[in-house]
Amino acid sequence: MYSIVLQILFLISINCTVIINSYPENECNLDNKLVDEIQSYKNVTKQIIDKIVSGGFGTKMYEDYSKFIDTFGARLAGSKALEKAIDHMVNLTRQNGLNDVTTEEVDIPYWQRIYESANMFEPYLKKISILGLGTSVSTPAEGIKAEAIVIKSFDELEKTDENKIKGKIVVFDPPFVSYGETVVYRSLGASKASRKGAVATLVRSITPFSIYSLHTGAQDYENNVTKIPTAAITHEDADLFRRLQNLGEKIVLKIHMSYAMSRKISRNTIIDLKGKESPEKQVIVSGHIDSWDVGQGAMDDGGGMMISWFVPVILNILKLKPRRTIRAILWTAEEPGLIGAEAYLTKHINETSNINFIMESDEGTFKPLGLDVAGSTNARCIIAEVLKLFTPIDKMKESEYPGSDMTLFVQKGIPGASLLNENERYFWFHHSEGDTMNVQNQEDVVACAAFWAAFSYVIADLSQDIPRQ
Amino acid sequence: MYSIVLQILFLISINCTVIINSYPENECNLDNKLVDEIQSYKNVTKQIIDKIVSGGFGTKMYEDYSKFIDTFGARLAGSKALEKAIDHMVNLTRQNGLNDVTTEEVDIPYWQRIYESANMFEPYLKKISILGLGTSVSTPAEGIKAEAIVIKSFDELEKTDENKIKGKIVVFDPPFVSYGETVVYRSLGASKASRKGAVATLVRSITPFSIYSLHTGAQDYENNVTKIPTAAITHEDADLFRRLQNLGEKIVLKIHMSYAMSRKISRNTIIDLKGKESPEKQVIVSGHIDSWDVGQGAMDDGGGMMISWFVPVILNILKLKPRRTIRAILWTAEEPGLIGAEAYLTKHINETSNINFIMESDEGTFKPLGLDVAGSTNARCIIAEVLKLFTPIDKMKESEYPGSDMTLFVQKGIPGASLLNENERYFWFHHSEGDTMNVQNQEDVVACAAFWAAFSYVIADLSQDIPRQ
Repeated sequence: MYSIVLQILFLISINCTVIINSYPENECNLDNKLVDEIQSYKNVTKQIIDKIVSGGFGTKMYEDYSKFIDTFGARLAGSKALEKAIDHMVNLTRQNGLNDVTTEEVDIPYWQRIYESANMFEPYLKKISILGLGTSVSTPAEGIKAEAIVIKSFDELEKTDENKIKGKIVVFDPPFVSYGETVVYRSLGASKASRKGAVATLVRSITPFSIYSLHTGAQDYENNVTKIPTAAITHEDADLFRRLQNLGEKIVLKIHMSYAMSRKISRNTIIDLKGKESPEKQVIVSGHIDSWDVGQGAMDDGGGMMISWFVPVILNILKLKPRRTIRAILWTAEEPGLIGAEAYLTKHINETSNINFIMESDEGTFKPLGLDVAGSTNARCIIAEVLKLFTPIDKMKESEYPGSDMTLFVQKGIPGASLLNENERYFWFHHSEGDTMNVQNQEDVVACAAFWAAFSYVIADLSQDIPRQ
Repeated sequence: MYSIVLQILFLISINCTVIINSYPENECNLDNKLVDEIQSYKNVTKQIIDKIVSGGFGTKMYEDYSKFIDTFGARLAGSKALEKAIDHMVNLTRQNGLNDVTTEEVDIPYWQRIYESANMFEPYLKKISILGLGTSVSTPAEGIKAEAIVIKSFDELEKTDENKIKGKIVVFDPPFVSYGETVVYRSLGASKASRKGAVATLVRSITPFSIYSLHTGAQDYENNVTKIPTAAITHEDADLFRRLQNLGEKIVLKIHMSYAMSRKISRNTIIDLKGKESPEKQVIVSGHIDSWDVGQGAMDDGGGMMISWFVPVILNILKLKPRRTIRAILWTAEEPGLIGAEAYLTKHINETSNINFIMESDEGTFKPLGLDVAGSTNARCIIAEVLKLFTPIDKMKESEYPGSDMTLFVQKGIPGASLLNENERYFWFHHSEGDTMNVQNQEDVVACAAFWAAFSYVIADLSQDIPRQ
């Protein structure tokens, strides 16, 4: 899950109402005919779910998923592993009998990690584990040796005399409040510290829980700022620096960081199950196929990509062709900043009026709970009614901008939803070596896939479009 | 916490009854006078606890503890950091007004980690994080490159044809059942695999939970076995190897490991608060001051060492001199195999009849719950009665061998107890980079210290000795 966009949207949407339960019916005045029509999908949704959960299709999908993850591992935007993974998914689609699969090229940045190390030299020698943040510049070859100053917040940074920051390595140690609130120190910390003369920044990893864990992620240099190296450190080391500073100790660090930056061509992957009545109208289901370069990208976003890929594939196998086209998109280069989604939207800008609904799974495929929905009250009322088909997977949350890649579409007024799931521990593993198949549970992923496919089918097949604002 | 001893004792004590609640009173026939005497300590125990929890002494102790951990960091047996840490605790004792502090030299092994790396070469290139196990031999300078075979259990190893093991790197991936049950793969795996011709072993880290975490610990080569290098790997990589093997993939690994082994002199630290009536009789309170070389050894066993050190120090400050001597012992070299405790017992073998009770805290200083007790029914009845003074810290568990260093004493028939605390996550951090001050909570550590001091005082002051078997 990309974070700078989320962080900005967090600031926008912090005051939005959030409801985590069924949508209040008294606000809805759905036509009885529509309600009856929705409820008439009970049998077909049950059939889809049964086939996936008990009929072997879910097991096969999970095996394909596990093999995919273990074969390609981390799939950094720009890497060969990502392009091989894309080829694999194209072939897998065809092997499953769906031939309407294409890729569209996207020009993307390729930020490559080469070498990183850090040591504390004063008050004593200690190795400090670091993990550079996306787009960080390198240190000079001889490294950077400087005194560190630990800063809790941007507010504290602002209030600190410039002479105390100049020439220093700024260690940001904000307490984790929420991802959206805390990630600004990762995404904007280097720029803010650089403006006050810092020579590098180290940021306490953005996670609520750590076993000496490092979490990378995107960061952006603001315009006209001296680009300084920036990396994540563990909670443990950040808190150690804080305690040493509180004891009055002088902290001297030396860091070596080396990265390469170039551009590459990658591809969005588009898989269509053409609609039988209005093939020009689309319901998009999506996840991103790229990941960071640590762990396996199993959770972020291998699982979400896989269950989205599976929607047109399984419906085709089950010979369930909805009225509208179901288009699965495997976004490329989400992590460096929604690059694939942006390229797609630019290329397909004339089709946006045909996108009936957009779905994204990019916050885990743990036990499914329901949907996080953006759209008009009318749209939400219809979604709430459809969710009743899936009890107990019927929770509904409202957000102005749910999801990550889909944000760009929601901004255009297209209604959409992201998958709600029991992802309380999502950020324990997010963007870290811990994001592997070990965090996944077959039963949960299959349940997500079954819900995702059956829900998409209903939305794509309803006689009525999902209304916009 | 040392593990080979525990593992052996686990096999001995697996059938022992375990009770986690107050001791059943109907089995006890304590003399009314004794019961009254015990209950008469209510005021003094409350006074001790109040002074520690609310009177500032606990806060000061925690500050000393935190500073100790952050100043000396990991304190590997044989390292200079450990000896400096011992000097520091001797000085800290005197600074707190207790001068009856001595050290006793112990000849210990010094196993030093120099360099470690591992890569998977087939089916594709991937860095594998490893952490060598204590006493592991080095690989040849050019490393070991060999095919890996993943083995779930010793039973499976036994049943596997020798030709399938010979020349291979054996990866043990036992599921974590309990520490005692699973740690045998760490402590004995290399010897067992070596006997079947393996060239190295990698063992799934002994923990119930992982964020790509590595956990070291002791291992022993059996006699007359070819010593092969052995290291811990993460759950994530062990499970990846298992899945690749299940897919029929050939797994080729290359490992480089380098260690140095020598001998050093370390010291047990002995701090006495001499008894006012029977100074020759002792109640020992203890924890070990050494740690592994990863993390800070804050939990294992900085916390237990500190609260035990604090007992004679705070009672001396509060001018509470019990009948018997309270002896705090800061064991050295527990991790390589209870070396300090064994040396102490050998040197003081003629005094064992004077040890009235031995206490140890080496399983965490989280929220205190009560005690894990070894001793006769009579002894346990008295302990249960004393615990009533500390409700709700009154839970009692029975074990044949609670604790680690104290095991050697309990084997001699000396009754004793280790601290029960809310340590469900203990093994998440144990012997890993995650064992830092971050896992500690000031309120909990202070509560442990208060309970530990007040309980020790009562036992050391009772008119009656704790009866042996």
